[in-house]
Amino acid sequence: MSYFRDNIEKMSGYIPGEQPKDGIYIKLNTNENPYPPSPEVFRAIKEAVNETLRLYPDPIATAARIKIAQVLGTRPEYVIAGNGSDDLLSIIIRSFAGTGDTVVFPYPSYMLYKTLAELQDASEYAVDFTEEYSLPGDFIVKGAKVTFLANPNSPSGTMISPGEISKIASQVDGVLVIDEAYADFADDNCLSLVEQHDNILILRTLSKSYSLAGIRFGFCIAQESIIQGMMKVKDSYNVDRLSITAVVAALDDQKTMRANVEKIKETRQYLAQSLQELGFYVYPSQTNFILAKCMRGVSAHHVYQALKSRKILVRYFNIRRLDDCLRITIGTREEVEILLRNLKELISNNHAKSKVAYCP
Amino acid sequence: MSYFRDNIEKMSGYIPGEQPKDGIYIKLNTNENPYPPSPEVFRAIKEAVNETLRLYPDPIATAARIKIAQVLGTRPEYVIAGNGSDDLLSIIIRSFAGTGDTVVFPYPSYMLYKTLAELQDASEYAVDFTEEYSLPGDFIVKGAKVTFLANPNSPSGTMISPGEISKIASQVDGVLVIDEAYADFADDNCLSLVEQHDNILILRTLSKSYSLAGIRFGFCIAQESIIQGMMKVKDSYNVDRLSITAVVAALDDQKTMRANVEKIKETRQYLAQSLQELGFYVYPSQTNFILAKCMRGVSAHHVYQALKSRKILVRYFNIRRLDDCLRITIGTREEVEILLRNLKELISNNHAKSKVAYCP
Repeated sequence: MSYFRDNIEKMSGYIPGEQPKDGIYIKLNTNENPYPPSPEVFRAIKEAVNETLRLYPDPIATAARIKIAQVLGTRPEYVIAGNGSDDLLSIIIRSFAGTGDTVVFPYPSYMLYKTLAELQDASEYAVDFTEEYSLPGDFIVKGAKVTFLANPNSPSGTMISPGEISKIASQVDGVLVIDEAYADFADDNCLSLVEQHDNILILRTLSKSYSLAGIRFGFCIAQESIIQGMMKVKDSYNVDRLSITAVVAALDDQKTMRANVEKIKETRQYLAQSLQELGFYVYPSQTNFILAKCMRGVSAHHVYQALKSRKILVRYFNIRRLDDCLRITIGTREEVEILLRNLKELISNNHAKSKVAYCP
Repeated sequence: MSYFRDNIEKMSGYIPGEQPKDGIYIKLNTNENPYPPSPEVFRAIKEAVNETLRLYPDPIATAARIKIAQVLGTRPEYVIAGNGSDDLLSIIIRSFAGTGDTVVFPYPSYMLYKTLAELQDASEYAVDFTEEYSLPGDFIVKGAKVTFLANPNSPSGTMISPGEISKIASQVDGVLVIDEAYADFADDNCLSLVEQHDNILILRTLSKSYSLAGIRFGFCIAQESIIQGMMKVKDSYNVDRLSITAVVAALDDQKTMRANVEKIKETRQYLAQSLQELGFYVYPSQTNFILAKCMRGVSAHHVYQALKSRKILVRYFNIRRLDDCLRITIGTREEVEILLRNLKELISNNHAKSKVAYCP
């Protein structure tokens, strides 16, 4: 006999990308930033490592909310902080969708949306993106309580325009969650839509552009009534003292973040072009990764495995529409050169004489 | 129109104790440890403040689980880590209780259990403790999916014996969650029951005895099948890098924790006796706080307010059975002396000539 709810018992759970503990890999599989965070972050955390760790953090992370509002040109009342974006996604699903309620998300996208719907025992609608990763007409599902949209999308790296998202917000019945984890790497974002739409929730994270995946901090921007309701659902002390301190320092140093983002965008351009020259189809990326479709006959899974055996981790998803693709995080220029050298070897060698990188 | 679920719309949310930002208070209201954590914690965190913060943490906090298992004499597979005990309580309610399912907890106890049941739209049964804070026969509710029991209990500080809890575990239908946040201050605990009962979940936290409320770390100990199921429900990266590092260092230094706990227990003894001498009824405490019932005619609310105006914060709950009580965290001996001096003044002054501390 199981003590678990049936939906929990049945589901398999979200599997995050590999996090090897030995650190000897070139790690291009979980979209971490290859550059360190601002040195001001290190200074600020070290200063906060003192006797006050015995005290609970500020439950509503006031210092971080004020700084976020200042940097993004909004008000602290429009901001709620979370233990990473995932914490906010959990808060959102619990706030707006109950058992049997309709939850919509595109496919393929961030797999966690499906997991969240399963956890909540909601009715999930995974709506296929078109081949070019634009949204089909049937993305608007009548009566949906929550519609998730990663924008730019992962794992495709593609983007829907804010104009189109504004139209969708007017058409959906419930809330529209725009997961902008990668917005700092994109040409545009949906921040300005929050004032016009009381049902738009924007998610941001410090994990990617600010190089702080290790401290777990994300935030949501929405109108005040939404934020107030979500405050009831979050854990009392969901963000710790050191993370709040780190975030304030990180946001205060826009220059370091911007410089890192610019380097990544340059390398992205280089990697995209090089992958195309190697014969991959490359989706246009507005993120810190690239989705590359393997040329006809090349097995993405074999390439993934061969790279792994050479201590290079990229992401492979063994699911429909992605099983012929690799998602490659933009590393440093040096890491990307090593990746390309290995890819070149694998593909040309194997083209000639083996099956390692090729389908039978 | 609200986008929120009805249950969320209706509920009021958990209100944590005041966390003043100016730091000029003697803070005896949220059961923080008055002594700093191990210096090894500071050293370890500072060492971990480096370039690796750009990387995600270990999703299952392996280093912390191994250390916990070693210190408590169990296996890592029996341990799941959380962003504070509250994170684990959320994981538990979502794992085991759905809409309309029965959730049981005693009253008065940690108010969050009620909030969690409301969040999950479950059917809540708050069963009154007896006057002496023992459990009544009707604590076993047929068909309960989750039964919560803080032991030692907050805010009473009282304790149910492991023997009695073992009997309850055999009688309840679903899981029995023993919230042992204060166990290190108690004479006994329920850890050894985990092997005998596949439905017992023990919660522990680093916030109290280890003086680390600021870093947010709790853990749950249960049989492996329970832990595996809860892993599906938790956020992928729910505990951050610095917290994992801090916890390993804190657990490695049992001596500092034990010394702090011993000082607190001595001060608890002194405070309990002094409060009795001032005319309070003092519940027997196995925690780092004391619940003191005001003598006939003295208004606990007025005493709370008068202390606050003197920059001393204690906890007052304006609810049935607690509205004539103060919950006082055990501070340093010096803090407790200041508290007692002020209480003495308030009570004797007001007895003679004012209404500040007395009911009309």
